[in-house]
Amino acid sequence: MKKSLIALAVLSASGLAMAQSSVTLYGVVDTGPTYIKGDKNVYGLTNYGGTTNSRLGLRGTEDLGGGLKAIFNLEGGIGTDTGEGKAAGGGFDFKRTSYVGLEGGFGIVRFGRELTASYLAVSRYDPFGDTGIGATRFWGNGYAARVENGITYYTPNIAGFKLGVNYGFGEQTASRDNRYITLGATYDNGPLSVGFGYDKLNGNRVGGLNPAAEDLTTWQLGGSYDLGAAKLAAAYKNTKYKDDLGNSEKLKSYMLGVTAPVGAGKIKAAYSHYKWSDSSAKANEFSLGYVYDLSKRTAVYGTYAYLKNKNGATFGLNAGNLATSAGLTASGKQQGLQVGIRHAF
Amino acid sequence: MKKSLIALAVLSASGLAMAQSSVTLYGVVDTGPTYIKGDKNVYGLTNYGGTTNSRLGLRGTEDLGGGLKAIFNLEGGIGTDTGEGKAAGGGFDFKRTSYVGLEGGFGIVRFGRELTASYLAVSRYDPFGDTGIGATRFWGNGYAARVENGITYYTPNIAGFKLGVNYGFGEQTASRDNRYITLGATYDNGPLSVGFGYDKLNGNRVGGLNPAAEDLTTWQLGGSYDLGAAKLAAAYKNTKYKDDLGNSEKLKSYMLGVTAPVGAGKIKAAYSHYKWSDSSAKANEFSLGYVYDLSKRTAVYGTYAYLKNKNGATFGLNAGNLATSAGLTASGKQQGLQVGIRHAF
Amino acid sequence: MKKSLIALAVLSASGLAMAQSSVTLYGVVDTGPTYIKGDKNVYGLTNYGGTTNSRLGLRGTEDLGGGLKAIFNLEGGIGTDTGEGKAAGGGFDFKRTSYVGLEGGFGIVRFGRELTASYLAVSRYDPFGDTGIGATRFWGNGYAARVENGITYYTPNIAGFKLGVNYGFGEQTASRDNRYITLGATYDNGPLSVGFGYDKLNGNRVGGLNPAAEDLTTWQLGGSYDLGAAKLAAAYKNTKYKDDLGNSEKLKSYMLGVTAPVGAGKIKAAYSHYKWSDSSAKANEFSLGYVYDLSKRTAVYGTYAYLKNKNGATFGLNAGNLATSAGLTASGKQQGLQVGIRHAF
Repeated sequence: MKKSLIALAVLSASGLAMAQSSVTLYGVVDTGPTYIKGDKNVYGLTNYGGTTNSRLGLRGTEDLGGGLKAIFNLEGGIGTDTGEGKAAGGGFDFKRTSYVGLEGGFGIVRFGRELTASYLAVSRYDPFGDTGIGATRFWGNGYAARVENGITYYTPNIAGFKLGVNYGFGEQTASRDNRYITLGATYDNGPLSVGFGYDKLNGNRVGGLNPAAEDLTTWQLGGSYDLGAAKLAAAYKNTKYKDDLGNSEKLKSYMLGVTAPVGAGKIKAAYSHYKWSDSSAKANEFSLGYVYDLSKRTAVYGTYAYLKNKNGATFGLNAGNLATSAGLTASGKQQGLQVGIRHAF
Repeated sequence: MKKSLIALAVLSASGLAMAQSSVTLYGVVDTGPTYIKGDKNVYGLTNYGGTTNSRLGLRGTEDLGGGLKAIFNLEGGIGTDTGEGKAAGGGFDFKRTSYVGLEGGFGIVRFGRELTASYLAVSRYDPFGDTGIGATRFWGNGYAARVENGITYYTPNIAGFKLGVNYGFGEQTASRDNRYITLGATYDNGPLSVGFGYDKLNGNRVGGLNPAAEDLTTWQLGGSYDLGAAKLAAAYKNTKYKDDLGNSEKLKSYMLGVTAPVGAGKIKAAYSHYKWSDSSAKANEFSLGYVYDLSKRTAVYGTYAYLKNKNGATFGLNAGNLATSAGLTASGKQQGLQVGIRHAF
Repeated sequence: MKKSLIALAVLSASGLAMAQSSVTLYGVVDTGPTYIKGDKNVYGLTNYGGTTNSRLGLRGTEDLGGGLKAIFNLEGGIGTDTGEGKAAGGGFDFKRTSYVGLEGGFGIVRFGRELTASYLAVSRYDPFGDTGIGATRFWGNGYAARVENGITYYTPNIAGFKLGVNYGFGEQTASRDNRYITLGATYDNGPLSVGFGYDKLNGNRVGGLNPAAEDLTTWQLGGSYDLGAAKLAAAYKNTKYKDDLGNSEKLKSYMLGVTAPVGAGKIKAAYSHYKWSDSSAKANEFSLGYVYDLSKRTAVYGTYAYLKNKNGATFGLNAGNLATSAGLTASGKQQGLQVGIRHAF
């Protein structure tokens, strides 16, 4: 069932095609009280979600015959705490996912905006799914998890191997600004899972670590092994920032994670370490969470996270406006507690 | 049937659960020509609705077993006259309602943004439902009908009694700014209905009567009795504004209303009086309307409203940009005529 | 089937009413790589669509009995390349269409925002449907294809004749600014189709040809004849701009078009000529396209377009931000190539 709970079979002359063509309206609403202690204390409601970012979307598949399918997906984020969308003016948009494509024996081709193959290959090893205060901070600091104005290609699954590439047009006439190339390779076989990602983003980036940062080159590697009683995961990410004056610096991130089923729920824990190459600035983060499934669609959860900076580093918890309000001095620390409800439809 | 016309039964293994779990896409489109005479005349189309504010929403209930249910609602407003949403940048958002929660024998707990328990307890006595030019102006002047970043609790219905509270986090580190506490108590038994509301909103308010107003404390009381041939309603609201210099003033509002079924339609009339405590500024408003139901989902309507200020008061009709364009001098008056179509789906 | 693929029969006591009342969620996602050569070259993804502008909408019909129906439509545009909506702040809105109305033996009455009767009467003769780089530029230069704050009336179809009028309130107190009146008349009979449109838009227009342009008066005429092997079309448009100093100028546009079925697809070609009356500035545009239908809902396509200005004219191709980026000097030219996928649901 999962997220296709309002799966509407497309009306069609052929019962077979009907079974294979569908349009699904789906969504997630996830929020709850959060407490963040940084320089100061702040209490509030989680902005986009504690375990899954709140969203609303439509996706569809049409069987074109001969193994060919048309596919599309439109999905946007919702700030459940206030009802705001994620557009600059507070409106709802489809910037989580917006693509149209074809799928066949050759694999998948899609045009539009979507999560990069690189990000998808490795972010799945974060026990907290890069969401809520427990999220590892691998993918902050100017890293773009999504490509837009992009062409995406995925190979079919071949003996557990799958390869994906994104090419995002910068839409520039005189430079390569905003051009984005990413690659993701995954291997999944029984209990073993491995993922590798590579990104090259041509600068002019808002949110880059260094205001003058022009280019960002990343490679990341992760894996997990499911022992049954627990699933162990590890990941590494190396990001090189290069500005237009030729200066560069690297950010190295490490993560160890574990998830274990306990009753109708799951315990999750992660440890992350972040280190800048051009200074001794670094940080450690520890997260512990429990998700209790009330059904396949609904869960309640609690997460605790602690992040400590050293030598001038300024990593903060993934808590949006609350983390900003709580404040963080250089070398400071933040900790937080988050409880909430997640409901998928 | 009402608003659940696109009720989509959630696919489920259990036929019983299927009957009790659902996701519904619903909406209202309501607009029509409006004429407002203030300092000048202006003609145009009603912005958000003449009898029901135009909206689009999704709501759902999932049966979790043991009497427990997961619930959610996402709903946004639409300016049917232009197609604009209500976000600052003109986009559609979900700021009418955005919550996720649980319902059980203990009552209802919800997280997010929604109409306050106080507003819901009393606004239902306005024959015009606080919508269109006939609306009483009880809930203007900086009053917030919605709480956000909020935790809401409603008791079960006990012998007709129901109690609701909202606590809205201000999300501040150093003050109570924007913190919002409301309480609503209702009693409904046969023809008799009574509602009481209390609000305490900690200032820093945009739209407050006094630009320096910091705190707003409200209590409101209303009731109705259904005689069959007509339903009589009355309400009172007392709002105290207090600025950061310690100055305060009160706004007292009174309303008498009546609705009566006539053929396939309903006649509505209301008289309201508004009075400021720190001056002799006051105003009287009279509204008369007729709604003719073409079906359970569709109606045509006409409303006339007249509002006269005295001693420097500046209350205007509830007609959005048209009321603003028509203009209003201190102690002036506005009157208007509004016709339109309301369609719910 | 067409666009009503998620047609949700409205639940109703009467099976007959059920068949006649419906609410439909529908949409189009259309994008693909585009190359534009103006002063410079630029590559990117088509913004709103190469053959049909990407959109998401809801529309419904309710049978009220006695031949009367309630109707509504809410529809907004989507920039599939980035997921942005079309509101100023990037959010999704319903500014493509937003109306509620009644339909009966008397015709159709609608309140809200929609394409004008004038535009609809003639734009249908553009083989490229006023979409993508192949579109004729008849409807640029400050022309408003949509009316808002509007009352719309269409006659029933009488022996192939149909007449529509729009009246858009300017919502001004002291002037006729933004008032918009349009008229569209169509005749369709077997292979023959003729359409006539007239518009009068009272100025204060953003995007007008002349920054001081106050009033725009248009008449346009088009027709097509279907020979079977090919369908021939022609159109003429005459637009008069008048500023607040009494100066005026005219823009005359001519188009010849042809579409021909070829296999499972369709070849389209158009030639347009644009000429300003107050100078010798003029331009020629030639477009050639092929649309290959993979199903009734999905197509792949390719379009080539060439536009050459003379004597200082500055007409550009219909390619949004890519045409702007590619640049265009006075008397210059632009050409482009566009391929993509269109999927309707």
